Amino acid sequence: MEAIDVITAKRDGGELTGEQIRWVVDAYTRGAVAEEQMAALNMAVVWRGMTRAETSAWTQAMLDSGERLDFGGLDRPTTDKHSTGGVGDKITLPLTPTVAACGAAVPQLSGRGLGHTGGTLDKLESVPGWRADLSPEAMRVQLAEVGCAVCAAGPGLAPADRKLYALRDVTGTVESVPLIAASIMSKKLAEGTASLVLDVKVGSGAFMKDAASARELAETMVAIGTDHGVRTSALLTGMDTPLGRRVGNALEVAEAVEVLSGGGPSDVVELTVELAREMLRAAGLDGARDPAEALRDGSAMDAWRRMIAAQGGDPDAPLPAAAERRDILAPATGTLTRLDAYAVGVAARRLGAGRARKEDPVSAGAGVELHAKPGEEIRAGRPLFTLHTDDPARFDGAAEALSDSFAVDGPARNLPLVLDRIG
Amino acid sequence: MEAIDVITAKRDGGELTGEQIRWVVDAYTRGAVAEEQMAALNMAVVWRGMTRAETSAWTQAMLDSGERLDFGGLDRPTTDKHSTGGVGDKITLPLTPTVAACGAAVPQLSGRGLGHTGGTLDKLESVPGWRADLSPEAMRVQLAEVGCAVCAAGPGLAPADRKLYALRDVTGTVESVPLIAASIMSKKLAEGTASLVLDVKVGSGAFMKDAASARELAETMVAIGTDHGVRTSALLTGMDTPLGRRVGNALEVAEAVEVLSGGGPSDVVELTVELAREMLRAAGLDGARDPAEALRDGSAMDAWRRMIAAQGGDPDAPLPAAAERRDILAPATGTLTRLDAYAVGVAARRLGAGRARKEDPVSAGAGVELHAKPGEEIRAGRPLFTLHTDDPARFDGAAEALSDSFAVDGPARNLPLVLDRIG
Repeated sequence: MEAIDVITAKRDGGELTGEQIRWVVDAYTRGAVAEEQMAALNMAVVWRGMTRAETSAWTQAMLDSGERLDFGGLDRPTTDKHSTGGVGDKITLPLTPTVAACGAAVPQLSGRGLGHTGGTLDKLESVPGWRADLSPEAMRVQLAEVGCAVCAAGPGLAPADRKLYALRDVTGTVESVPLIAASIMSKKLAEGTASLVLDVKVGSGAFMKDAASARELAETMVAIGTDHGVRTSALLTGMDTPLGRRVGNALEVAEAVEVLSGGGPSDVVELTVELAREMLRAAGLDGARDPAEALRDGSAMDAWRRMIAAQGGDPDAPLPAAAERRDILAPATGTLTRLDAYAVGVAARRLGAGRARKEDPVSAGAGVELHAKPGEEIRAGRPLFTLHTDDPARFDGAAEALSDSFAVDGPARNLPLVLDRIG
Repeated sequence: MEAIDVITAKRDGGELTGEQIRWVVDAYTRGAVAEEQMAALNMAVVWRGMTRAETSAWTQAMLDSGERLDFGGLDRPTTDKHSTGGVGDKITLPLTPTVAACGAAVPQLSGRGLGHTGGTLDKLESVPGWRADLSPEAMRVQLAEVGCAVCAAGPGLAPADRKLYALRDVTGTVESVPLIAASIMSKKLAEGTASLVLDVKVGSGAFMKDAASARELAETMVAIGTDHGVRTSALLTGMDTPLGRRVGNALEVAEAVEVLSGGGPSDVVELTVELAREMLRAAGLDGARDPAEALRDGSAMDAWRRMIAAQGGDPDAPLPAAAERRDILAPATGTLTRLDAYAVGVAARRLGAGRARKEDPVSAGAGVELHAKPGEEIRAGRPLFTLHTDDPARFDGAAEALSDSFAVDGPARNLPLVLDRIG
């Protein structure tokens, strides 16, 4: 087979065969197909799209490039969640132990943040002592003993996806629904979960800005999961405004601990419970314990503490705090009708909570506190945001990102927390 | 500037600025933009196209990557022709000395063949002693003394085009009218001609299979030439059937010499005269000598002999002949209504006259003789083709290529020799 024939077939709008896809992904991973050929093929895919059969074959080829974990021998069903990324999206932190407390095992491989969205591993790494690296065997032991593990994907899982993502990142070929779906699903299928719930975010702070493209991504991923024998469903959830009231690494861990203590912001609690119910349903445990009850009775918190401790963390240690704070005051009195997730994400990144490039370090304590959410009253001269950073030179850039991020007494058009369910 | 921004602008259907194009072509040539980024950008151009302004800027950027010859100080106007390539297209050979005999200077940089079309340099190299390499200074001396030179483009002319063409060749991005036009025109503008006539071929043996795409290519190239201050026009000419009666390197030189002697096939004579008149018009010499007269009176032949000799060739030496011949007989008696140029080109390549890959050598003597052209009568059992090769193992593959190449007494649908004039 020749790469040029695969490229021209897709360029001319044809459907690639399973054999062509297996060959080209494998040959690329081995270095037998050049980076420039894969770049041209990826741009042709951005142009022409891929059918369900092509997308499933592409995912399978990436999955086949590495190992696939297997937690089949556990005494309880496995289930996992993946979020396409948002601002203030710390849901994994309370969700994972909650679902474990309700009887499922959650083997979650997670990532670090890039751009304006946070990464779950960055957040957890603000817990003193906590380590993201677990061997597959250590993961299995922890799942059996604690019921949940959140850790970094090792280099052996879907190496084709890692190589391909680095290529897409520099060649303008990230923006393709089938390629995004195949990338996410190859990693999730490699982690060996038996069921999967996708949190596909829609809005200014999400990768998908509108509901139609988010729905297309959700449907594509649900189809891939189904084609691979994994019970998969998706919720479309709103990301026009941040989740919760804190954005940043340690700031979000603190908010997650509030939720696990039975308190916390209502949107974080509600989405945690919705996703937990969906995961338990996917795992065949919908008749078991109610996740809201697990948050109230302390069993979710117990699972959290065991999970943190099992990965070397001290759940009682004080979380790191940033050295400097600055308040931004509300300019007017009235109802906050808009608070833009993207602007808050950019501000948090500028304060040090996120990265512009994947080599950059992140600050544990940096971030943004929100003193009001859309629908709430604000008063002129009272704090609207509190900025946290280790480097006061960063305040002005963050403040500038926030300057046009909100509206007072304007028309409200915030998305509902859950727009739809797919699958 | 960042390559990713240029790629995504084109991917999303935008018009690139002249600054973006200058930067990306220059940075790619210097190695500062990676092969995979240029491949993705080229596929986005195949998808989205380029405007006239973009295409002219792209051409200029490639031109600026190298040196530009200047023959402004000659005592006569310069003019040149470029053909997009066909089967049996030896027109450059009689045309160049004919135009020189009529008073213009022809500084032609030409190429070698690839695929089913022949290359002018391959043909001329079958003349014993003839050398394709001329320095710019030697070219100027020859233009002053002989009036014409056909030689290879040195590595200093449009190096960006050379690098880019090698990339497009392996990434499925050759098939873009603006990229084809920019590639051709960057080389032709670099050779420093003051006027240019394009022979854009249409039909089965041409790169452009239909008149609409050939017209688009012609219009694009005429626009680029005009934007660069070179008087440019184009003829659309038919390439459903080979030009003349011989296809191959030395075989075509022999036919060209027949034309220069006042004989030769009528289609080769007619197209030579048409293109010569067009070139003389472009050079402002349309009131001067008539090219048909230059063919009749021997002055074109004199120019040919001087040109060959000036580049080390012996115009009187016998041309190389292939070691082996085989006739293919006509299966029926009647009128030959179709003789497919592409099939004849493939047969000639398989006999050794052309290359499948650019590293391959070519045979001087190999090729195909046609004993009839469409519209002529053939008789069952009499030779229809004579195949020439140095390696008899090649006969069967060539015969197979020709087996379905012709029709007897079927409906005739051959393109006219000249379909249209543009510019």
